Parts: sequence; C-alpha cells; structure tokens
Amino acid sequence: MIKIVLDCYGGDRSPSVNVEGAVKALNDNNDIYLILSGKTEELTNELNKYTYDKTRLEIVDAQDIITCDDKPTDAIRRKKESSMVKAFDILKQNDDVNALISIGSTGAVLVGSVLKIGRIKGVDRPAFCPILPTMNKKIVGICDSGANAECDVTNLVQFAKMGSLYIQKAFGVENPKVALLNIGTEEEKGDTLRKEVYQILKNDETINFVGNMESRDLLSGNYDLVVCDGFSGNVLIKSTEGTSLELLKLLKKTFMSSLKNKIGALFLKKDIYKIKDFMDYNNYGGGVMLGCRKTIIKGHGSCKANSIYNCINQAYTIEKNNLREAISHVFDTEEEK
Amino acid sequence: MIKIVLDCYGGDRSPSVNVEGAVKALNDNNDIYLILSGKTEELTNELNKYTYDKTRLEIVDAQDIITCDDKPTDAIRRKKESSMVKAFDILKQNDDVNALISIGSTGAVLVGSVLKIGRIKGVDRPAFCPILPTMNKKIVGICDSGANAECDVTNLVQFAKMGSLYIQKAFGVENPKVALLNIGTEEEKGDTLRKEVYQILKNDETINFVGNMESRDLLSGNYDLVVCDGFSGNVLIKSTEGTSLELLKLLKKTFMSSLKNKIGALFLKKDIYKIKDFMDYNNYGGGVMLGCRKTIIKGHGSCKANSIYNCINQAYTIEKNNLREAISHVFDTEEEK
Repeated sequence: MIKIVLDCYGGDRSPSVNVEGAVKALNDNNDIYLILSGKTEELTNELNKYTYDKTRLEIVDAQDIITCDDKPTDAIRRKKESSMVKAFDILKQNDDVNALISIGSTGAVLVGSVLKIGRIKGVDRPAFCPILPTMNKKIVGICDSGANAECDVTNLVQFAKMGSLYIQKAFGVENPKVALLNIGTEEEKGDTLRKEVYQILKNDETINFVGNMESRDLLSGNYDLVVCDGFSGNVLIKSTEGTSLELLKLLKKTFMSSLKNKIGALFLKKDIYKIKDFMDYNNYGGGVMLGCRKTIIKGHGSCKANSIYNCINQAYTIEKNNLREAISHVFDTEEEK
Repeated sequence: MIKIVLDCYGGDRSPSVNVEGAVKALNDNNDIYLILSGKTEELTNELNKYTYDKTRLEIVDAQDIITCDDKPTDAIRRKKESSMVKAFDILKQNDDVNALISIGSTGAVLVGSVLKIGRIKGVDRPAFCPILPTMNKKIVGICDSGANAECDVTNLVQFAKMGSLYIQKAFGVENPKVALLNIGTEEEKGDTLRKEVYQILKNDETINFVGNMESRDLLSGNYDLVVCDGFSGNVLIKSTEGTSLELLKLLKKTFMSSLKNKIGALFLKKDIYKIKDFMDYNNYGGGVMLGCRKTIIKGHGSCKANSIYNCINQAYTIEKNNLREAISHVFDTEEEK
C-alpha cells in the first residue's frame, strides 16, 4: 500500500478539486491510501458528495492556510497549523507515509521539502523537475526549474543523474536522452559552468547525454530531460507556458471576432480543443522535488481535479518503481569511490 | 544623408532578399545611401531587376562568405574577403558610414562588432537587443540576449540604461517601462546578481524601472524592455520563438487534418494569417548591438526582403535620433562623477 498525504488547500479551486481528485484516485487504485490535510468540516462536506472506500482515507485537521502572499520560509516555520506544514509533519514523522502532494505556494513547498524532509545522502541540492508535453506526444523534464537560482558544476551533474532516473522510473522511458540547456548546440558554447558540465556529462556512462540544447527545441520531442540551473530553467518553463497561453488567447479572440470566424470555428472546434487539451497541464502530473528523502510533488495552483488525480498516480508510480532508492544508490556509491 | 553598409550574404535567401529590401528602402527614402557588400556580378544581376537611384548605391566586391559553420572569431580574423568582414572594414574605416546590417552568422556579427568596431567610451560590454511583438501590438526589447553569457552587476545596469535609450530613440516610446528578468516578481527574488541589480535600478532616476518580470509575462505588453544576462535572455527569446513556431505548426496540421477542418479553415484563413503575420519577425526590424561605436543590426537568417527593408529603416531612425550620442553622453557623464 502506498500512503500519500495530500495538502488540500492553497490552490485556486481548493479544497473541492483536491477532494474530487483524491476520491477518483482512490476509486481507481486499491493500493493507495490517502491522508487529507485541511479543515475537517470543509473536507468532510466535500467528501460526502462521493462514494469511496473510507478505510483508505483519513483527514488530519489543519485550520490554517499558506497563501502565495506568505514568505515561504516564514510560512513553513510559523504557520504550524497550516494544511501544508501539517502535511509535511505527517510525511516526516511517519516512515510508512511515502509521498506528499500540494498545489499551494511553490516557494513554500520547496522550503518545506528542504527544511522538513531533507536530502538523500550524497545529494548536494534537491532540484525541482516539472514536465511539459512535446509535439510528438512524449514528455520532457526540466531539471532544475527554480529550486536553485545559483548552481555549480556538481549541482548540474547531479540534476542530470537524478532527472534521468526520474524520467525512467516515472514515465518508463528507457535510456532517456539528456541535454544541457545552452545558448548554442556546439560543444564549446556557453559560460564556464556549461563548458565544464558538458565535459563531465559527455564522459558519464551512467546517462545518455546527447549534447547541448537550445531553448527553441524544448518541445521538439528530441529530448527527454533538459539540465539547467534553476534560474534559466525557470525562465524556460515560464516562457514556454506563457507563450502558449498568449497564443491560445489570441486564437480564441480571433475565433470570436466575426460571424464568419465563428462559423469556421464551429467546424474546427473539436480538433482545436485537442490542441488546447494537449497544452493543458491538467492532463499531466506535477513537478517533482528530486533528491529529497521522500517523494514530493507540486501541482499547478490553478489546476482542476484531473491534475490532482494525475499527481497521485505519479506519486504512486514513482514509489512503486523505487525512484528514491535508485537515486540513493547512485549517490551512495559515488561517495564510496 | 545616412550611409548604411549592407552585408548581402549569409542568409537563407541571400543575396536576392538583401538586394530586394535594399532597393525598396532606397526608393522609399531619399536620405539613405547604401553600400552593398558581396559578389559584384551576382549583386549586379539582382539589381538589374529593379529601378532605383543609382547615385545612392554602390557595391563593394567581396568574394567570400561567412557561414554558420564557421567559428565566429576565426571567421572574422581570417575570412578577410568575406562580405561580412568587408562590410565591417567599410564601417570602421569611413567616418561617414553610420551603420551596418547583416543577416549572417549571429556569432560572427557579435565578434565583428567588438573586434572591428569597439565600444563607446564607458561601456563595459556591448549588448545584443532584439525585439518581439507583444499582445497589445507594442514591442518589447530583450537586453542582453546572447552577446554576454556571463554578466556582472555593472553589465546589467548598463544594459538597462542603453536599452531604455534604444526603445525611446528607435520606437518613440516615452519613458520606457524597464523590468528585470527574474524567477519571481517580489523584490527579494532571484540570485545575488539580480538582488544587487534590483536595488541599483530601483534608485536610478534616469530610467523608469518597474521591478522584476517573470518570463511568462514577456508578451503581455506591460513592459518595454527586459534586462537580463545573455544566457537567460537567449533562453527567453528562443523559447518564446520556438513555442510560437511549434504551436503554429500544430495549428496548420490541425487545419489540414480533415475535410471538415479544411472547410472551417477557409472561413478563418484571413484572420489566422493575421496572427501568423503578427508573430512573424519579417515584419519587424533586427536586433541591435547596443554600446558599439557604430550602429550594427542583425536580422534573422531566414528573413525575407521586407525584414531587410525594416532593418534599414530601423538603422536610419536610430541614426537620425542620435542613439549613439545619447548612450555616449550617459556613460561619459558617469565616468566624470
């Protein structure tokens, strides 16, 4: 049985989407046990809308909420009665609880992961690795994408190893193609950091390093994992998402701008929705904090129930495939050398 | 009279688009004089297709071409007979030649700018500043976007000042809104570099600093200039362009995927073309090397004649509005302090 604690607050549509996604996951998989953290009364009211196996779900009462206006470090230290801190405490104190999922403040989840849960032995810095869909209907991971604004050579090399294992274990990709985010594809491109990391990754036989990648090729499907410092990784993922959103908005505006266009849009409706769906993060899981002693997943703050459901399944798969043990094995062995 | 030297090779459709754009600009504006650098015979053949004022155009013969496969520094040093090096030499040796335009190798243009032309006194590092269209039909500049992979505080502060002047002088934007690219909008976000730069820009009364910007807001139209190190700026612009291209490709594929969709697309054709047009760099000028002793513009390698025409007009406007003098004035005054 995989035990997962779910922070039920902090999202735009919390706690209703959290509860809906939780029940759906529970009903789909008998091997999942869920702990919901949040206001007991509100959660009970939400739960009463559904039928589910009550022996595999419990509520832990938490009356406070961490919002995006809270300073992450202060919030984790002081909001002890918040749904997120309570969830982290449960994850920390119980050996049999495997994973935590939250759609609350990203900053607070990152801080909580480091302060409350801590790193796997040998890991210098945990990295935040979200995924995006690619044009050939695969996925690409971006590691790190914001947990570490400043990185050194060791960090980036570790991100490559952890990310590669993650893509294998969570998505079943054999021998994932790992690329280094850079400002050109040639070996000698980039700053000192990138040049050094390139040489190490090139000679590392434990990963399938395929060279530098320019940001324009992120969605091409030619790469399974992109390694970057948290600053440029954050720029990369947010600009990709931002551009998609702006273009889809523009498209929608065009469709509604005249009677002729509205008629044309009717013909195309079904397939345009497919594009929208394809770009929609609700259809994918969340970002994972790699290198922590437990599995921690951060979903989109504005996500719907389906995304919570996907995050729970993602946590389940990661735990079933022993990602943490695999990372631990790589870094423990390295320390022995 | 503004004298501009145009490198006529190095683009996907060179030299025909270069010549076509040159003639168009010449016919539109009596105050422009053009020097075309390249193979005399080929350029003459192209020119013979058009009618134009022959007293305001000359050819400088250059039989060699710098390609994207050439290493930039080697190419600028050794390919002395290339159209790009000859163009740089003309710009360097003639006080009355104001500007250079090339659609060849970006790396070579950057190296040529620094090695052949040099910096304005007081400028530590020239910066490459391309522009993108925003959703509210304005433009946004990205400074630096690849000339300097490693930057310090002074560099970023200078990029902000030069970029702000550029947006004013080239696009007539009064009091441009200058933002710092960061991984969050709050003042304390980012790495040490960003935190220091934020404090300096906040207290600089010569620019209109509006705070941090996340990459997802680049196209929002809320900002006129984004300041960044060349590494993250390069990631930003290439991911924005890459995502747009991939989505437009997906859209085209959807339109052609069934008879029903084809019919719908017929209704929408005109307005969808408008979106494509709006995202098309051919309708805008090139990126400018800010802080060099002469005006240097780099257009897209795969651009059409219209883009060359726009680059020439952009160079003309910049020179007419004395951008170089304005930058020189700011940095000279600062050195005196």
